[in-house]
Amino acid sequence: MKTSFDIKYASNQSKGEDFLNEIQAKKPLFICTIATTETGKITGISAAGKYPEFTDYTPPADAELLLLGRCKCIAGVPVTPDGIPTPALITMSSLRLADVPVLVASGGLKVKPQIPFLDFGGNPGRDIRTGNAVDNVAEVFARAKLAGEQLAKTVDYLVIGESIPGGTTTALGVLSAMGIEAEGKISSSMPENPHDLKCRAVQDGLAAAGERFGSMAENAVRAVSCVGDPMMPVFAGLVSGAASEIPVLMAGGTQMTAVLAVINALNPDVLCNVAIGTTRWVAQDTSSDICGIVSHIADVPVLAADLDFGGSRFDGLKAYEKGIVKEGVGAGGAAIAAMAATGGAVTKDMLLHEIEHNYAVLMGAK
Amino acid sequence: MKTSFDIKYASNQSKGEDFLNEIQAKKPLFICTIATTETGKITGISAAGKYPEFTDYTPPADAELLLLGRCKCIAGVPVTPDGIPTPALITMSSLRLADVPVLVASGGLKVKPQIPFLDFGGNPGRDIRTGNAVDNVAEVFARAKLAGEQLAKTVDYLVIGESIPGGTTTALGVLSAMGIEAEGKISSSMPENPHDLKCRAVQDGLAAAGERFGSMAENAVRAVSCVGDPMMPVFAGLVSGAASEIPVLMAGGTQMTAVLAVINALNPDVLCNVAIGTTRWVAQDTSSDICGIVSHIADVPVLAADLDFGGSRFDGLKAYEKGIVKEGVGAGGAAIAAMAATGGAVTKDMLLHEIEHNYAVLMGAK
Repeated sequence: MKTSFDIKYASNQSKGEDFLNEIQAKKPLFICTIATTETGKITGISAAGKYPEFTDYTPPADAELLLLGRCKCIAGVPVTPDGIPTPALITMSSLRLADVPVLVASGGLKVKPQIPFLDFGGNPGRDIRTGNAVDNVAEVFARAKLAGEQLAKTVDYLVIGESIPGGTTTALGVLSAMGIEAEGKISSSMPENPHDLKCRAVQDGLAAAGERFGSMAENAVRAVSCVGDPMMPVFAGLVSGAASEIPVLMAGGTQMTAVLAVINALNPDVLCNVAIGTTRWVAQDTSSDICGIVSHIADVPVLAADLDFGGSRFDGLKAYEKGIVKEGVGAGGAAIAAMAATGGAVTKDMLLHEIEHNYAVLMGAK
Repeated sequence: MKTSFDIKYASNQSKGEDFLNEIQAKKPLFICTIATTETGKITGISAAGKYPEFTDYTPPADAELLLLGRCKCIAGVPVTPDGIPTPALITMSSLRLADVPVLVASGGLKVKPQIPFLDFGGNPGRDIRTGNAVDNVAEVFARAKLAGEQLAKTVDYLVIGESIPGGTTTALGVLSAMGIEAEGKISSSMPENPHDLKCRAVQDGLAAAGERFGSMAENAVRAVSCVGDPMMPVFAGLVSGAASEIPVLMAGGTQMTAVLAVINALNPDVLCNVAIGTTRWVAQDTSSDICGIVSHIADVPVLAADLDFGGSRFDGLKAYEKGIVKEGVGAGGAAIAAMAATGGAVTKDMLLHEIEHNYAVLMGAK
């Protein structure tokens, strides 16, 4: 293992090193899985938009940023209420530095991106408090699995990220439905993690579905259908289809644990080929515990890109060091892939430089 | 060049050999571009369905056959009015023998396939006699080009096929609009080529658009918009995006000449990386002239898979030797790719054996 890789092992160092060795200098494909859910519009849940309606635009705008280097469905780029830019900026900068190809996969969208995307027949998600959040989970999963099988024949490994406002709340929903203790362990894009708000939404959803904590431990499809989101069946399907053949890096924060639980229920055999890739901001977050949740599900390593924006000349990037945003759109996994694909030639300093350049261009900052 | 390859050079042998040498033993990705147009429902135009309304189901059924090995949106497989099976059977058999990955790209569909597919924002096509056949041609082309650029980073070369009933009529439309003499040279899926019917539809369409033969020679986007079909902008965009980096085999019959004319107008520089791959049945067809049309557009080689169903034990396959169906769903190009990818290990005899096996399974024949 080259020490010049700016990657940390958040858990399971030996397996993490094996995974990193396997993907080093190999050819990845990055897939950005996007979807929308009304859950993201619950007041106080998500930082992914200034106004609740804006959450419908965040995923397509993030996807456009990755493919085009700019957004089309909105002016500028998605920002939090405080003006902190989307982590897609990190993802885009990483992928461009290492010339990694990108595909966009839709789980179900209110607003479609103005770029090519894979469709799996999914619909936008409903508020989990209805207890009936996602349509056609089994069918969408099966179609995504089929795509994962095909894509596994094209490249050496996959890196899969997501953009769905409200996604940590639906993650808590699925984990709770499946009996995995995650209360107080789920991350947030906001500086003050609204754990109580998320818990109430999940409890309301489980009650509306006539279910309770752990009652769907044996039924992942129903767990997602009741209190999940439409990103999950696509993400879990892609991993299930691809990881039987090639390594897959699940790029994201604590949301990944819910997807992991679904895969573990439907296709556990593939998990030997899977790692989670996140950011240092998630791995070191004291208001959440990604490794703790993972340890209750499966023996899967968690890698963390050692990004550091403390020295940035932009306040909008420095804010990441205060725990705002932290992760999303596969930022951590994309950074890891950029470092691994280039054999460590891409460093965290180079990344910050590229991110600052793109920040300046896209935010009109100097 | 290994003589065991069952591939013939229909034109431009030297360039064809160069192309084949370049793709030999390399890793391809097959993309099936599907769309529907009301043009396919004009009485007597297409053999792609027993009833005009059935043409809406042919493209999604063909795509499902490639990915799943069976159709979901219809029972059985698409057949001509005489019961001759879709050429997707040849494509599927070729791709499976050589383990070639498949993606499906939609140009615009009335009936969506029950599998994953790439969406480019296109709509189903209108009857070309309206003179206003296709929406958003420039935008769909741009999105497909973007996808082609990304996919070019994943594999060594692309093979792109199509399924759109009525596609030879829209091909004649675009060629005529662009001033390329093709009357009487366009192939047909039917034993008696209805040249007059196609010509009349094209003339009606040009008149309805206030245009005439050659009046859109400098405006390929408008030519497709007026008298083309929604497969074309996706196909031309994918080639334009990918062929700047990797070889692209355009898999199809005389329809490919219209797509070639569009690419030649919008991105001529990429054509040095392009070949057309078809079947012997198209290359030797006396009622059409693919090489003649190509020679008026660009210096692009035409390769032909030397398929021979004369010895088949099934009448439904023997019919291909009588000039029925001839090509479609990239059958010829897929066969060429299977031979090239395996360094000639896949032969025409092996292919026929596999096709007969799949025919028996899918058609319930013995």
